[in-house]
Amino acid sequence: MTIFLGTGAMGAALTIAAVRDGGSAVVWNRSPQRAHALTRTPGVSAAEDPRDAVTAGDVIVTCLLDHASVHEVLDPLVADLAGRTVINMTTTTPNQSRELAAWAAAHDIAYLDGAIMAVPEMIGEPGSMIFYSGSPLVFGKHRKLLDRWGSSEFFGPDPGLAALSDMAMLTGMYAMIGGFLHGTAMVGAAGVPATAFARRQGPFLAAMAGQLAGYAATIDAADYTGAGQQSLRFTEAALSTLIESSADEGISTELIDPVRELVRRQIAAGFGDHGTARILEELRSSR
Amino acid sequence: MTIFLGTGAMGAALTIAAVRDGGSAVVWNRSPQRAHALTRTPGVSAAEDPRDAVTAGDVIVTCLLDHASVHEVLDPLVADLAGRTVINMTTTTPNQSRELAAWAAAHDIAYLDGAIMAVPEMIGEPGSMIFYSGSPLVFGKHRKLLDRWGSSEFFGPDPGLAALSDMAMLTGMYAMIGGFLHGTAMVGAAGVPATAFARRQGPFLAAMAGQLAGYAATIDAADYTGAGQQSLRFTEAALSTLIESSADEGISTELIDPVRELVRRQIAAGFGDHGTARILEELRSSR
Repeated sequence: MTIFLGTGAMGAALTIAAVRDGGSAVVWNRSPQRAHALTRTPGVSAAEDPRDAVTAGDVIVTCLLDHASVHEVLDPLVADLAGRTVINMTTTTPNQSRELAAWAAAHDIAYLDGAIMAVPEMIGEPGSMIFYSGSPLVFGKHRKLLDRWGSSEFFGPDPGLAALSDMAMLTGMYAMIGGFLHGTAMVGAAGVPATAFARRQGPFLAAMAGQLAGYAATIDAADYTGAGQQSLRFTEAALSTLIESSADEGISTELIDPVRELVRRQIAAGFGDHGTARILEELRSSR
Repeated sequence: MTIFLGTGAMGAALTIAAVRDGGSAVVWNRSPQRAHALTRTPGVSAAEDPRDAVTAGDVIVTCLLDHASVHEVLDPLVADLAGRTVINMTTTTPNQSRELAAWAAAHDIAYLDGAIMAVPEMIGEPGSMIFYSGSPLVFGKHRKLLDRWGSSEFFGPDPGLAALSDMAMLTGMYAMIGGFLHGTAMVGAAGVPATAFARRQGPFLAAMAGQLAGYAATIDAADYTGAGQQSLRFTEAALSTLIESSADEGISTELIDPVRELVRRQIAAGFGDHGTARILEELRSSR
């Protein structure tokens, strides 16, 4: 018996995947219609209030709006939760996950934090990837449940690590999408359709994504002077040409300007001959 | 007989690939040592000045430092060049390519502009991709030579299109690299090595690159209200979570802030329920 608090699109997908092979679940949702709709799925019953739900089982999966909602729902139940397990799938920042884990530990609640790298439609399907951190015991004991949602990966006991890795992955994605849309706007100014551009840009970026391991090796070695690295000076010239080209076509350069700024600050610091991966140091230096 | 003006790393690679199957070339370079070094390759001879080079053949390939260098070398030879063909492989902005094409047309010089999507080591190898625009006649007539350098693609008679497409492709690449380095810095703050992050981020970005065609179809249809699009409001919330997460770890958010700014301006304009590809309109609106 698994308890689900929060049955929005993602919570509902987690519930349905959990009972697919004959499991059972009790669900609660702030708007009761959404919970009741789920009871059409065999094995799912609805609870009228969160306490009835929580006391019906030992494993409570939370998938709520945000960090504040988790506290709002769980704080009044702290006595009931003692000795039980919370698997929190709500999207939170790493520090919010850490705060929840500390709160859980203080109340004798076992805590695992999940970060979902998928949209609801993908849950339980190939390609769904879910990161976990927090209690290794909870991860090991409930692995069968977790694996029903997607491929599960445990990052370690720091409860913020799953959320942090999730956010880091998405940063690369949103930056790439921004760059793609900028490129699309550039060629669009000369009448090239977006679909024609995407046919080239997609495979090109996929190939370049395969090259990121090289940058990573440079960073871990902390040696930006090795052979085969594209120098910051070269990158500055390339970025300047593309920024000028973009401006000539009347397309805003606001997404790519900051990359050149980072490069220029590292050049000004005397590292023009170093590899371009060195701009990582500039991102870190605000720490 | 093909003439090469400029034998830096890229010019040398183009020369060597051109004569690989028994062709012959005359090369000239501002620093004569680099041209002389190339004469060790069978089929290559060096000219002492650019006029001697240009008058030794009908097809002149320029691969010089920049747009100004092309004029500096070719302007004094304008009478010799009349009736000949210039294939310009120098990195230029689209408008610089257009200017050179107009200059060539005014002096009865056939002109093709090339943009190389490869590093010198890749020339003539699988994966080397070269864009062309300008004279379709020159592209058709010299296709065999061009194909020795990589897979050749002709974009049309606008001489700036090859360079524009090149710059647009690179914009996506540099944006992606910036995002990857930002993500690496985030997880690095919690002690995760860059190589461990790249092992997940590389395949994830490659998969996401495959999704760009969906954004492109939305853009060409100019309908940001269709089903299955991630709304600008959802994207704003996701970006805010990751920006907060990044700041919490002490990592600069300067690369990703401008993406959220574009999203927020489109939301402020009343498009919060529209798909995220709509930020393209914001990039265009500076035109």
